Amino acid sequence: MSGEAGTPVAVLGLGLMGSAIAKTFLAAGYPTVVWNRTEAKADALVALGATRAPTAAAAITAAPLTVVSLLDDDAVGAALRDVGPRLHGQVLVNLTSSTPEQSRRRAEWAGRHGAEYVDGAVMAIPQGIGTPDALLLYSGSESGYRTAEPALSTLAEQGTYLGADPGRAAAFDASLVSVFWLSFFGVALGISLAEAEGITGSELVPFAPAVVSLLPDMMAQTAAQVEAGHYPGHDTSISSAYTAFSTLRDVIARHGIDTGVLDATGEVFRRALAAGHGADGLARLVPVLTGDR
Amino acid sequence: MSGEAGTPVAVLGLGLMGSAIAKTFLAAGYPTVVWNRTEAKADALVALGATRAPTAAAAITAAPLTVVSLLDDDAVGAALRDVGPRLHGQVLVNLTSSTPEQSRRRAEWAGRHGAEYVDGAVMAIPQGIGTPDALLLYSGSESGYRTAEPALSTLAEQGTYLGADPGRAAAFDASLVSVFWLSFFGVALGISLAEAEGITGSELVPFAPAVVSLLPDMMAQTAAQVEAGHYPGHDTSISSAYTAFSTLRDVIARHGIDTGVLDATGEVFRRALAAGHGADGLARLVPVLTGDR
Ligand SMILES: NC(=O)c1ccc[n+]([C@@H]2O[C@H](COP(=O)([O-])OP(=O)(O)OC[C@H]3O[C@@H](n4cnc5c(N)ncnc54)[C@H](OP(=O)(O)O)[C@@H]3O)[C@@H](O)[C@H]2O)c1
Ligand SMILES: NC(=O)c1ccc[n+]([C@@H]2O[C@H](COP(=O)([O-])OP(=O)(O)OC[C@H]3O[C@@H](n4cnc5c(N)ncnc54)[C@H](OP(=O)(O)O)[C@@H]3O)[C@@H](O)[C@H]2O)c1
Repeated sequence: MSGEAGTPVAVLGLGLMGSAIAKTFLAAGYPTVVWNRTEAKADALVALGATRAPTAAAAITAAPLTVVSLLDDDAVGAALRDVGPRLHGQVLVNLTSSTPEQSRRRAEWAGRHGAEYVDGAVMAIPQGIGTPDALLLYSGSESGYRTAEPALSTLAEQGTYLGADPGRAAAFDASLVSVFWLSFFGVALGISLAEAEGITGSELVPFAPAVVSLLPDMMAQTAAQVEAGHYPGHDTSISSAYTAFSTLRDVIARHGIDTGVLDATGEVFRRALAAGHGADGLARLVPVLTGDR
Repeated sequence: MSGEAGTPVAVLGLGLMGSAIAKTFLAAGYPTVVWNRTEAKADALVALGATRAPTAAAAITAAPLTVVSLLDDDAVGAALRDVGPRLHGQVLVNLTSSTPEQSRRRAEWAGRHGAEYVDGAVMAIPQGIGTPDALLLYSGSESGYRTAEPALSTLAEQGTYLGADPGRAAAFDASLVSVFWLSFFGVALGISLAEAEGITGSELVPFAPAVVSLLPDMMAQTAAQVEAGHYPGHDTSISSAYTAFSTLRDVIARHGIDTGVLDATGEVFRRALAAGHGADGLARLVPVLTGDR
């Protein structure tokens, strides 16, 4: 089995994420072959025992399992342009953030060259790789995934195989990363406002868990209401929530903090209200967003 | 002490939140006097043992402690227009969402009428009231808060007094609620996208905790970097993050889902990039939002 310790693993891409991945393989005892476009980024890993490959093709040839973590699908295309023939019989695990379509096309391309292609999505920061908090999602070739699983399990306890459609991990990724990005902007806005109100980070941060702990339940309730096509406002109504939201927007505006993101959000509320959904629950904003109101 | 069980409590406002509050007081054994503009909303509480007051003034007079949960500060102004003289010697706890300025003005007004004024912010949904998950923040009159504390502690284990400035609870509230609102829009967008990709809520929801669990640490790191005025990209860079963000935006757009909120978010990224902050960490977006770049 190519995924077991003792069997070499190649890592293509030594940015923040790729370096964390290579480090974790090394720590788990995998002989690790590394390649990066800008060679100097391999130095720290070579010092930890990794083997530097002069080209992506050489890295792939040196190991039966290759893990790719590059900027985006264009970077994958550029890095793998001439390696096609080297892929035969290999397992290729691509952890680069991609659209579901890009992942499917990449799988086709790898399949044409005789590789078993697994597409993955990393729901963690580099510092989380190898810790119990990391979540990695995979889809594509199941036998490829099973072969790679021992090595991949060193990256995240929560590795999850989502099925044969190579675009599926990217689809889950995009859905979850939507939550992440807007939440992060909420964090940035909240800290901007706290600063303007003379509240320090260390005063504010202890209360964050109480807020974010509301989200999984809200997500479950929202998903259930969308599935049922029925949007009771058990805990709040769009109209009452929009009032509270507008109060927040006023505070932000009065401090001269950028209201662009909140204004775009308010626009969604206003469309829901104009469509007569004021008494419904917040889940009703989903069909408003999808145009399916 | 007016806050102890046996001493009556008045609740003004029986919307979703006020009703949950009144129910919790009743369950804890407090004689509870209730008032709502639309009288019928008191019926369910009267059936549980509450006493209906015909006017806000009558409710206030019937109990040494009054808790207010109305739509917004305008509604508080309307409901309390003529009750001024009844406030003398009373403790008034206002849990209505307000701006810090509104809370300070409300405190002045109540103080002029001889009341001890406590402003509060509810970081919970109505169903959370009375459970260990609820977080309530208070500021304003400390002696008023101490008097009310036994009754208020039935609403939330995590009641926190933040100091004498009556605007302080509202300032914390606005900072935390920024996180909540954008996170919720992230959830709504994520569910929209999942639906478009043929992923059901019950497939997606189990992965939500892994994503939201990243937020408290991100908030702590962002706050610390902003305080230090130094923005190292330890885990990601604005430029690399913007690439991943743009990939997400493409997926959303291709499904015809509303990109307004993401576009406004992308605009903040682009301003950071244009200002030359591409190599910095995400915390650098805070001074971009505050115009303090
Ligand atoms: N960092 C995170 O928190 C995080 C979290 C989840 C997912 N991800 C995903 O993980 C992937 C890597 O992210 P990262 O944080 O490691 O980014 P990064 O630090 O910016 O690294 C980008 C990598 O891509 C390479 N690259 C870019 N364009 C290339 C090209 N045309 N040809 C060859 N190589 C190219 C870079 O090589 P050079 O060194 O030569 O520039 C570098 O190795 C991305 O898809 C990202 O979305 C990251
Ligand atoms: N629900 C939540 O999840 C939540 C969470 C945190 C904070 N909050 C805050 O809690 C407060 C109450 O929210 P809610 O969810 O209970 O809202 P709600 O269900 O919409 O209830 C609004 C209440 O305000 C009253 N009201 C509105 N305008 C009035 C006026 N001009 N004069 C007198 N009464 C007026 C309504 O009386 P009628 O019945 O006569 O219309 C009703 O009692 C808000 O400030 C909200 O931001 C709510």
